[in-house]
Amino acid sequence: MSRLAAVREATANAGLGALLLTPGPDLRYVTGYDALQLERLTCLVVPAAGEPFLVVPRLELPAAEQSPAARLGIEFVAWEETEDPYALVARRLGQVERVGVADRMWALQSLRFRAAMPGTEQVLAGSVLRELRMHKSPAEKAALAEAAAAIDSVHELIPQLLKPGRTEREVGRDIADAIIASGHARVDFVIVGSGPNGASPHHELSDRVIQPGEPVVIDIGGTMPSGYCSDSTRMYCVGEPPADFLAYYGVLKRAQEAAVAHVRPGVTCESVDAAAREVIAEAGYGEYFIHRTGHGIGLETHEEPYIVSGNTEPMQPGFAFSVEPGIYLPGRHGARIEDIVICGETAGERLNHTTRELVVV
Amino acid sequence: MSRLAAVREATANAGLGALLLTPGPDLRYVTGYDALQLERLTCLVVPAAGEPFLVVPRLELPAAEQSPAARLGIEFVAWEETEDPYALVARRLGQVERVGVADRMWALQSLRFRAAMPGTEQVLAGSVLRELRMHKSPAEKAALAEAAAAIDSVHELIPQLLKPGRTEREVGRDIADAIIASGHARVDFVIVGSGPNGASPHHELSDRVIQPGEPVVIDIGGTMPSGYCSDSTRMYCVGEPPADFLAYYGVLKRAQEAAVAHVRPGVTCESVDAAAREVIAEAGYGEYFIHRTGHGIGLETHEEPYIVSGNTEPMQPGFAFSVEPGIYLPGRHGARIEDIVICGETAGERLNHTTRELVVV
Repeated sequence: MSRLAAVREATANAGLGALLLTPGPDLRYVTGYDALQLERLTCLVVPAAGEPFLVVPRLELPAAEQSPAARLGIEFVAWEETEDPYALVARRLGQVERVGVADRMWALQSLRFRAAMPGTEQVLAGSVLRELRMHKSPAEKAALAEAAAAIDSVHELIPQLLKPGRTEREVGRDIADAIIASGHARVDFVIVGSGPNGASPHHELSDRVIQPGEPVVIDIGGTMPSGYCSDSTRMYCVGEPPADFLAYYGVLKRAQEAAVAHVRPGVTCESVDAAAREVIAEAGYGEYFIHRTGHGIGLETHEEPYIVSGNTEPMQPGFAFSVEPGIYLPGRHGARIEDIVICGETAGERLNHTTRELVVV
Repeated sequence: MSRLAAVREATANAGLGALLLTPGPDLRYVTGYDALQLERLTCLVVPAAGEPFLVVPRLELPAAEQSPAARLGIEFVAWEETEDPYALVARRLGQVERVGVADRMWALQSLRFRAAMPGTEQVLAGSVLRELRMHKSPAEKAALAEAAAAIDSVHELIPQLLKPGRTEREVGRDIADAIIASGHARVDFVIVGSGPNGASPHHELSDRVIQPGEPVVIDIGGTMPSGYCSDSTRMYCVGEPPADFLAYYGVLKRAQEAAVAHVRPGVTCESVDAAAREVIAEAGYGEYFIHRTGHGIGLETHEEPYIVSGNTEPMQPGFAFSVEPGIYLPGRHGARIEDIVICGETAGERLNHTTRELVVV
């Protein structure tokens, strides 16, 4: 069954009248079309009963016709600059009780759809697509493995780039270039957290000069031409690591290992989080692990399933996600180790293969 | 009056109980905080009555505290990974009849706010912010002029990059590097439309080899460290231009000139569109000008006001927008000339200054 057919069936099974998919990962998943997210409406309409159609601004029509969506055999409906495309969708779709809107649809569009379809309840398209998107096909696994190999090759270059006296931003620019050179189509994020900046998990880059003896968190990722994402964190130290850092780095490695080892079909997502958290808490660093253990990954860097307390979803073969516990000592330094892991038939399999030892440069 | 105070006042005047601003241009406009748009909720809450506060995931707190938002003197409310931040906002805000949600808020978030605030009607925050955002302050005009100068310097380099035998993608990569080297923080788009690809207004890059004698549309833009965007299109030809291209290129130049000359306070946005369209229609190319004449620009490449038939908004000093008519002959070639223009006290002022003549390379 084609992906589009599977989505139609899931839409009907969920009791939705249709899905409305604007540009973003949901649309790309269903059609392969990597359309621009803009104020002009592009929207794939997948009715539970009836034929899907793609609404596109007339000036995007040539791009849409060259995209993989053109091979789906669906109708393309072009709208003119002075037309109301929301009314057009409402008219063609007819009265439906509930529609699923793309999780990343802008309010600019969801509120206009609401006005054009006043009797229709909106729910998240993710409620239909999550099951499909969480189960990675062999082709999707291969695409994630390709992305992981590309980002691994960037981590291999870090010892040449990271030197005391350089700023985080200088190192970060070189890393961004290397991410593109490694085959990514786009750089999504480059975190170079030196010394105390490493204690802020989502710190990106600053003009701070990296000092001798400082641990550095390097968390990097991008999107491949396939649309699939990479995301890997490794720890570096510029010269001799401080003793208080080494005291917890071994704990973190064991925690990450324990969480990966815990992955298998049937265990809950939250139990994978707990496996990492337990090791860190037992060593007395529990209060310094201030985020969830991981997030799903695929066409989005962050997608379901989330590896977090409260998520009782059982792991299934094909789930792909990060395992990235961290320990952060405010004002001092921090550490995180992150691999992308796929749940296999009996165990988890890491896609990232560079060393998880502290790399002293 | 501070920008935040102006927004509060406008929120109250619009009869809204509050604005909910998630990461994106609306949040950046009000606070200067260039936060990541992620599935974890970051949201500035601006009540019409009461104190504004910023809800942030705990792991984003250090980043938020280093951002310009920290200088606003508002409370930061951090939420933990296992908390429900939507309920937290609803609880702190209390019952309100109508809220404005950021135009780019994801459905993932707007639908969760709807569930957490069941009696509350959502409208677009843009209905409150558009008046403020459309009127560029002197600092904003300077930021747009800086962005325009940067992209102009990239157009000056094109004759060195554009050669027959190179592919659009090869040329596009060099242009992307030059956009960063010119001072932009980010490349937003690179369109290299050679020969027939120039007839697709939103064509980006392909592996097509550029041939001698082909006109090439180059439409490029990025975001500066200030957050303000550039966007400029110029026309090039690799060797001797074809006669049927020259036949309409002069028409296009006159149309663009006519639209720019028409700009002054009080004329409608649609009349600027009409000024360009008239010249093109009179020359017999009306059916080949298939898009609006322009879009507002600021913290977004495309924002209000739109220069399009049906938009009766009168021009006011401080409006900033593109003037970019185009003529597209399917299967042959196309042309577009684009400048960013600011409406002054008596006339429009172009921010882009490279030649609008066809550049033969």
